[in-house]
Amino acid sequence: MNYDQIFDQAIDRLHSEGRYRVFIDILRNKGAYPNARCFAGHNGPKPITVWCSNDYLAMGQHPTVISAMEEALHDVGAGSGGTRNIGGNTHYHVDLERELADLHGKDGALLFTSGYVSNDATLSTLAKILPGCVIFSDELNHASMIAGIRNSGAEKKVFRHNDVAHLEELLAETDPALPKLIAFESVYSMDGDVAPIHAICDLADKYNALTYIDEVHAVGMYGARGGGISERDEAASRITIIEGTLGKAFGVMGGYIAADSKIIDVIRSYAPGFIFTTSLSPVLVAGVLASVRHLKQSSIEREGQQAAAAFLKRSFAEAGLPVMPSTTHIVPLMVGDPVRAKQISDILLAEYGVYVQPINFPTVPRGTERLRFTPGPAHTEAMMQELTEALVEIWERLELKLAA
Amino acid sequence: MNYDQIFDQAIDRLHSEGRYRVFIDILRNKGAYPNARCFAGHNGPKPITVWCSNDYLAMGQHPTVISAMEEALHDVGAGSGGTRNIGGNTHYHVDLERELADLHGKDGALLFTSGYVSNDATLSTLAKILPGCVIFSDELNHASMIAGIRNSGAEKKVFRHNDVAHLEELLAETDPALPKLIAFESVYSMDGDVAPIHAICDLADKYNALTYIDEVHAVGMYGARGGGISERDEAASRITIIEGTLGKAFGVMGGYIAADSKIIDVIRSYAPGFIFTTSLSPVLVAGVLASVRHLKQSSIEREGQQAAAAFLKRSFAEAGLPVMPSTTHIVPLMVGDPVRAKQISDILLAEYGVYVQPINFPTVPRGTERLRFTPGPAHTEAMMQELTEALVEIWERLELKLAA
Ligand SMILES: Cc1ncc(COP(=O)(O)O)c(C=O)c1O
Ligand SMILES: Cc1ncc(COP(=O)(O)O)c(C=O)c1O
Repeated sequence: MNYDQIFDQAIDRLHSEGRYRVFIDILRNKGAYPNARCFAGHNGPKPITVWCSNDYLAMGQHPTVISAMEEALHDVGAGSGGTRNIGGNTHYHVDLERELADLHGKDGALLFTSGYVSNDATLSTLAKILPGCVIFSDELNHASMIAGIRNSGAEKKVFRHNDVAHLEELLAETDPALPKLIAFESVYSMDGDVAPIHAICDLADKYNALTYIDEVHAVGMYGARGGGISERDEAASRITIIEGTLGKAFGVMGGYIAADSKIIDVIRSYAPGFIFTTSLSPVLVAGVLASVRHLKQSSIEREGQQAAAAFLKRSFAEAGLPVMPSTTHIVPLMVGDPVRAKQISDILLAEYGVYVQPINFPTVPRGTERLRFTPGPAHTEAMMQELTEALVEIWERLELKLAA
Repeated sequence: MNYDQIFDQAIDRLHSEGRYRVFIDILRNKGAYPNARCFAGHNGPKPITVWCSNDYLAMGQHPTVISAMEEALHDVGAGSGGTRNIGGNTHYHVDLERELADLHGKDGALLFTSGYVSNDATLSTLAKILPGCVIFSDELNHASMIAGIRNSGAEKKVFRHNDVAHLEELLAETDPALPKLIAFESVYSMDGDVAPIHAICDLADKYNALTYIDEVHAVGMYGARGGGISERDEAASRITIIEGTLGKAFGVMGGYIAADSKIIDVIRSYAPGFIFTTSLSPVLVAGVLASVRHLKQSSIEREGQQAAAAFLKRSFAEAGLPVMPSTTHIVPLMVGDPVRAKQISDILLAEYGVYVQPINFPTVPRGTERLRFTPGPAHTEAMMQELTEALVEIWERLELKLAA
């Protein structure tokens, strides 16, 4: 048994497929986002513009969030010092859970250390509590949902992306006596399309299934109070469990679910991924509280972000760049090859000070490698024009196809 | 299919076993730890003393840690805004991984959002990379290791707690051609005993197995620089992968592994629980950097903590209280019944302002329910004497057995 050889082979596979990942080493400049400093190379930090952050609304830089965190830091200290059950349940956690339940019009909410953990822990536990549960899963569901479903050991039936007819086929062929759960996302973050929530809920009603929606890329972003697509589409009350992150539009870190209090109590009591881990730092929780409260009342950030995304999509399309048909704030450019995608990204960083990460397998299917832009309220039209010109120059240099 | 009824039954089971958990709602007072405020009841926050925090050295309150976090908050903002690969790799992350690799004398280290996730993600990924891998797991391993092992799908062989003879039996009966991994903890946190690291490494050498040690309750606490029991026992170089948390002795939040750079690269490249999640907030990472650096150079905190633990054990033993035979900083009192343990804890909080959480199943085996005290450098001898007297009074009131 030669362990080293096996590890070498695993790494070689990545190199040979052109998808070995090198992390870009950056520091954002608070108060000046999307400006940042890049530490790649050896000539000291170099100024760059970040185009691929999921801090979509720049709330991670918002003065209200920063000062709430500063206050908590000085009031209670750095970490919680324990699991939620053993010493780590601070008043901030209790308040934030109330705030998030209210955001989604649910009785209760439950915090996790990340959105990944909230999906993994909730889905795996729920399906274990419901003996014989069958999970119906959209084929483009995020890795964290896939992990939770696999770890539950439940039977999984995958339906074609956003295909309600296929979902119904699978529901109809399943024993009506078995518990059922439909798991899907609202905004699919690598394509920017949106799920038909009401149509899925109609099927859930018809076949007596529970519903689980991942609103990770939508909370804070859609709906009058930032309750996500389920708020915008007035569907929140039809969904059994709404899951979200605190690390993207809310700008901090952490994850949660909102649901009726019975389900919250079950997950709280049975999920190892919730029980056996140090709770979120109260400093983070205080920041999120400020962020959620702010975005419940303020729509300026959402509107600025939507305007920027619309401008960039138009600008790319007019220049003939292969912008994908997103209906949301996500602006993906299809490249279709991992080596090319990395090459474009490298040129952008080295020559234009533009940071956009190439997205490759396993984040997206092979052959659909892309660049994914997330302009925010602070990216100006001038910046977007320059970006478009840079991309056109690179497209021509690499002899890639531009639309007429 | 009546979902509500199934959820009700799940909750009823907890009530009937006396292990339904109610979270105590607290805020610590920075600068005055172990003092805190408790929000239970309706008469406003009430002062309490915390006796069950895993912020063992009170580093979560340390001025160096607090000011490092404050600086990062103002320099770069609240969250990282992305996964490590997509926009969330800050210079703080890179620096901290170097610092942690150095702490354990390894080539590399890798950060995760928590210790739980580091165990789950690493163990499940490692065993998938090594086809046919058999994992040898101590029977008292933490839930997060059990999750990672189960999620790997690998064959698992459980050896009796710290029983090297039993471990050898299991290794000897396993096909020599198969990859093998021995997973264990250094300090077992609910009992306070320590693993025979060298003896386990001897077996790993003999049977060509990799070794994985969870030093979650030991990093920062043992060894001249806080490298854990593996540093204290001069065994770090013999261990393949050392895992730790940033949320206990280091006082903040997060988790990591340290290992040679090839293994780090494999886990970094293949573990979904590392790849598909927003990276640790740079504010937390900055705090941990300060904390790790401080504890590499300063032993005062460790010595104060060890002195307090020794004093409390002696005090409990002299009073005839059933203190368990811990060889570390953990001071567990055996109760052996979940209802009794909760009753004692409730009286301590209500009448004495003492907060210590009852520990019940599934954190410890049924019938071994206990109270677990973690005195720190800031718990005074007077406090410990008062605590002992309070416990003796309650033991007598509830007619529990005291040793002669
Ligand atoms: C759809 C989706 N769900 C869940 C997650 C995980 O959330 P978090 O980053 O908070 O772990 C992500 C991305 O990170 C995501 O894109
Ligand atoms: C032995 C052990 N390993 C891992 C963990 C998880 O670490 P974290 O709290 O950082 O998730 C814990 C406790 O929480 C633990 O006791």
